[in-house]
Amino acid sequence: MIIVLRPEATPDTAQEILERIGALGLKPLHMPGTERVVLGALGDERVLEQLHLESHPMVESVQRILAPWKLVSREMHPHDTVVDVGGVAVGGAPFVVIAGPCAVESREQVVETARAVASSGAAILRGGAFKPRTSPYAFQGLGIEGLRLLREAADAAGLPCVTEVLDVADVEVVDRYADALQCGARNMQNFRLLKELGQSRKPVILKRGMSARVDDLLLAAEYVLAEGNSRVILCERGIRTFETATRNTLDLNAVPLIRRRTHLPILVDPSHGTGLRELVAPMSKAAAACGADGLLIEVHRDPQEARSDGRQSLSPAQFASLMRELEPVASACGRPLSPAVRVAR
Amino acid sequence: MIIVLRPEATPDTAQEILERIGALGLKPLHMPGTERVVLGALGDERVLEQLHLESHPMVESVQRILAPWKLVSREMHPHDTVVDVGGVAVGGAPFVVIAGPCAVESREQVVETARAVASSGAAILRGGAFKPRTSPYAFQGLGIEGLRLLREAADAAGLPCVTEVLDVADVEVVDRYADALQCGARNMQNFRLLKELGQSRKPVILKRGMSARVDDLLLAAEYVLAEGNSRVILCERGIRTFETATRNTLDLNAVPLIRRRTHLPILVDPSHGTGLRELVAPMSKAAAACGADGLLIEVHRDPQEARSDGRQSLSPAQFASLMRELEPVASACGRPLSPAVRVAR
Amino acid sequence: MIIVLRPEATPDTAQEILERIGALGLKPLHMPGTERVVLGALGDERVLEQLHLESHPMVESVQRILAPWKLVSREMHPHDTVVDVGGVAVGGAPFVVIAGPCAVESREQVVETARAVASSGAAILRGGAFKPRTSPYAFQGLGIEGLRLLREAADAAGLPCVTEVLDVADVEVVDRYADALQCGARNMQNFRLLKELGQSRKPVILKRGMSARVDDLLLAAEYVLAEGNSRVILCERGIRTFETATRNTLDLNAVPLIRRRTHLPILVDPSHGTGLRELVAPMSKAAAACGADGLLIEVHRDPQEARSDGRQSLSPAQFASLMRELEPVASACGRPLSPAVRVAR
Amino acid sequence: MIIVLRPEATPDTAQEILERIGALGLKPLHMPGTERVVLGALGDERVLEQLHLESHPMVESVQRILAPWKLVSREMHPHDTVVDVGGVAVGGAPFVVIAGPCAVESREQVVETARAVASSGAAILRGGAFKPRTSPYAFQGLGIEGLRLLREAADAAGLPCVTEVLDVADVEVVDRYADALQCGARNMQNFRLLKELGQSRKPVILKRGMSARVDDLLLAAEYVLAEGNSRVILCERGIRTFETATRNTLDLNAVPLIRRRTHLPILVDPSHGTGLRELVAPMSKAAAACGADGLLIEVHRDPQEARSDGRQSLSPAQFASLMRELEPVASACGRPLSPAVRVAR
Repeated sequence: MIIVLRPEATPDTAQEILERIGALGLKPLHMPGTERVVLGALGDERVLEQLHLESHPMVESVQRILAPWKLVSREMHPHDTVVDVGGVAVGGAPFVVIAGPCAVESREQVVETARAVASSGAAILRGGAFKPRTSPYAFQGLGIEGLRLLREAADAAGLPCVTEVLDVADVEVVDRYADALQCGARNMQNFRLLKELGQSRKPVILKRGMSARVDDLLLAAEYVLAEGNSRVILCERGIRTFETATRNTLDLNAVPLIRRRTHLPILVDPSHGTGLRELVAPMSKAAAACGADGLLIEVHRDPQEARSDGRQSLSPAQFASLMRELEPVASACGRPLSPAVRVAR
Repeated sequence: MIIVLRPEATPDTAQEILERIGALGLKPLHMPGTERVVLGALGDERVLEQLHLESHPMVESVQRILAPWKLVSREMHPHDTVVDVGGVAVGGAPFVVIAGPCAVESREQVVETARAVASSGAAILRGGAFKPRTSPYAFQGLGIEGLRLLREAADAAGLPCVTEVLDVADVEVVDRYADALQCGARNMQNFRLLKELGQSRKPVILKRGMSARVDDLLLAAEYVLAEGNSRVILCERGIRTFETATRNTLDLNAVPLIRRRTHLPILVDPSHGTGLRELVAPMSKAAAACGADGLLIEVHRDPQEARSDGRQSLSPAQFASLMRELEPVASACGRPLSPAVRVAR
Repeated sequence: MIIVLRPEATPDTAQEILERIGALGLKPLHMPGTERVVLGALGDERVLEQLHLESHPMVESVQRILAPWKLVSREMHPHDTVVDVGGVAVGGAPFVVIAGPCAVESREQVVETARAVASSGAAILRGGAFKPRTSPYAFQGLGIEGLRLLREAADAAGLPCVTEVLDVADVEVVDRYADALQCGARNMQNFRLLKELGQSRKPVILKRGMSARVDDLLLAAEYVLAEGNSRVILCERGIRTFETATRNTLDLNAVPLIRRRTHLPILVDPSHGTGLRELVAPMSKAAAACGADGLLIEVHRDPQEARSDGRQSLSPAQFASLMRELEPVASACGRPLSPAVRVAR
Repeated sequence: MIIVLRPEATPDTAQEILERIGALGLKPLHMPGTERVVLGALGDERVLEQLHLESHPMVESVQRILAPWKLVSREMHPHDTVVDVGGVAVGGAPFVVIAGPCAVESREQVVETARAVASSGAAILRGGAFKPRTSPYAFQGLGIEGLRLLREAADAAGLPCVTEVLDVADVEVVDRYADALQCGARNMQNFRLLKELGQSRKPVILKRGMSARVDDLLLAAEYVLAEGNSRVILCERGIRTFETATRNTLDLNAVPLIRRRTHLPILVDPSHGTGLRELVAPMSKAAAACGADGLLIEVHRDPQEARSDGRQSLSPAQFASLMRELEPVASACGRPLSPAVRVAR
């Protein structure tokens, strides 16, 4: 840790801080410059947190040398983590496409959509039963009935399935029906929920918050791993910027950056990341090209009847076309599309 | 609602949409322009949600005419709402200062801080028992023990108190100890929690999320009111922007804007809004000057010992000085500082 | 144009505005709703600008139906524009890679780099002679001497070249040496410079400003076309967001969006768009995959000696490796890499 | 300067860098940690720029200890700079209000507006002759004729005046007519223009760019001072964020922050900073309360006839009302409103 003192700091202040650093078992360093005094602390700087040096009135700034996370770090765990989602490997060589409706609306809707995406090559089914909606007057999902229908559709199509958990109280029931639990963007810093997901034995798909830096996302993942669940899959889904032509700004820079910083797999959600169905196919290909491990795509058997997010949903025919376009790009990057895995339950 | 069709839309499409609008009891309007056909729907456009017109492949854009909220709207409720927090009126003429430590750390710390802020003119005590922290390795608060100490300190200082609720499961216990429940920025779109707070009879302080537009904040408040709790106090606490010299960008524009759109009171939190204690006093005065109903300020008896957010905490002496500077500005705006209210429990 | 009146607007106000719309030759429309009166104007709404309806105290909002640009619009000009840069076609089927040093520093540096990028398959040489730098104490480029060296290097490598114009006064001299003139991100709304570039007969590469929406970029291009120069190539180079792990946030959503809105070619600059050399290759492939017409990449014969932007520059070996990785991705998208064009001057 | 090496850096790399630091006359420091090696350089780190250490492949990050600016720094020049604009002191105790139309449109319009703002207490007249407009089809100002009318109006009202310079080529003519030259937000990083303004003997009002960090603004000011003109007045005018309810997000945090970092005066432009006339008065008071030295406000004798920015312009009556509200707030902060200064030319 590097500590820069204010110009008005006295030698006594420097001495006091150096002693506190030494008392914690780190090696203190004194670097008196011409305009500022700089102090250093060599060793595991995480123990320095308890000194609250940022709060010291004579400290101008503090720079950490080490990342604030440990378990998610690629430095500690250099090899890619592969997460098994109901028999489908996420994070290995095959490129995994997860597809399905934004919300489960009816048995026919979800079964029909599930079969359609399976036949086009999707490896996992997605669908929301509990829906976080900006307005209290919007459709909030079918709840537990939605979970049952999702499971039924997944089984009918021979796919594993993932769905979102909105609250600590839902983890148990969602765990019963789904093969992976999704933590949505609005909950990325719902730390109580992250801890609960850390207690689950199911894989967790953790979506980046709309205003989360990559480092915030990694710290959120650290919450889950710190509770004992290392089966975490990250997901870039767009951040909020000044651009209004798209619903969000899909930050694909985050993909290669995350791959360098962590061993966890990283997906991309171009449906939420753009909000416009006509951009989903090109951004899916871009995601594959920059190193993502897979996609999360909204497909509805009839997008104009979708009760949520229809503007960004693909029809089954559009999804089939996307898969045909995607395959050669993924292959060119050494990532064959994941084969459909017939699930036996 | 105004619906702009794509250039390639046919007269049949226009006809079909007009019929669907009419079938819902709204008056449809046809406006064929030279380059685009525009459709309108007169009446309560909220019923049009079920048509999902944004999803229609021949629809270019949809513009709502009315705000998506109702209960929080000043149009429906022109007079300012005044919320009683343990005997202190928030939203009336007096300007209310809520102060206290970021986190409750010990009996001595919170009691001493509570007495200090009370003697300088704070009207309500704040303090966190459950702390949302970016890193799983940071201090997470004292939990229920923290609630007890906060209550004890509030009583000792003769002030009502507010504290944050992190999860649905905590609402009941927090309700027992605090005079108002705070919903933090990271939970502004935790809709399950908002609904639970809507069931409470205690006032709710709802903080704006880091990436929430003013409209999102109003919709979040609508969730609480829609459940029957109309005692909501909003709070601007800074948004996330590209500026890195401050922890957040305090968006004071939001204050007069919110006052025009809703009847609910609005506070400002300059501690989180700036992240730097040297900016807290000037931004407190600015908040009073632009029409805020009060402030939320972090004060610690010894900021450099604070276990969280010490960099933005004021010492009791700095807080006393702020209150002296604030008083003439608030008075110049016709807002006398709220007198201390001795609470009897 | 759709005009929503404030709730307090009287029938007289509506009447007055309708008459002003009619007087301009547009067809006025009256849509009295239950909570708001909405007015419409059918016809070329651009003539309505002179009414300044946004400024009217009784007008709540105004929505344009048509895009504010004309010449750059794909609606007016459905086929892709192909721009010839010194014999290299930009915007046709071949994918064009423009590469070279951030700044021209010496004859050896630019000639050596030019030969290296040409031998790896770059089609056009880039290099800065006039450098916009955040600090007045940073290297500001070699000026006219830099232009001469760039031309010499381009000729030696058999490539056309592009370089940035910083000011109206430089257009003439840069025009003399370069095959295309680049307008940098900081100058995207330097309208005087845009007009001057519109007078040039050389192609213009117009980079998106750091805080420019896609619509702002298209309006900036409209300035150039409106002066008579239709040889404009757009370039996405990253926008400024809250993310600090990368220098900018490369907004690849903009690529397919721009392709839908305009007929002009669109390049991507992953060097500035990420600021980190290790992200340049993956984001180059992503750019090709989402439909860009080419790339702008910084290459320096010895990045650690670069006098500017070395952190994002590739070495010749890294660039050669990028080109090998890029080729199959571009091909999979039906975009072969542009062959080197031997330029005779 | 603090240099953190990558984990894979060898002792030889550290040694090589330490020698290069020493060769430049700085004192090198070696801090071998358990997970990273950190190097330091004590002395004037500005000479280290030439080492381009950020570009070094074995360097993970570089932290500067000193600010990159010198002349604008309060450390070098602790006392507030007071800039004389045609007899009006900006930056001293009096609070200075600059008001006038967005654009000069006609003799009557500017003379009438000038007299109105003078009689309400404005100290300086503003008005645009050269207008930067997002669309090439929008009104671009009256040019030199506009300058003449502005001067005439200023003289008639007995006020000094300021106007915007768009291009290097305009500096001379604007200098002839105006008492201060304004550099607009879009030109804040037009470094050629900044240098030209540095050659002028007139005061410069430098507006913060829409995506400029406070540090970027200070570096832009440094460009002007480095050329010899120390009469620079800064101006916060709103930054671009995700919030769309206001035209920009007025960043008042910047005011006290800038006052701590530099000795230059700082104004606030609530007209552009909000884009909504109903927010101008509250944000003017907020600006005074947080320590601004004055305001820049758009006033038009008839806002609904304004040819640009009418939505944010005040009528003379609204301006008079604002001045009445502002006076007690400014006084409460120890800043009396600047008296009108009769200018003799």
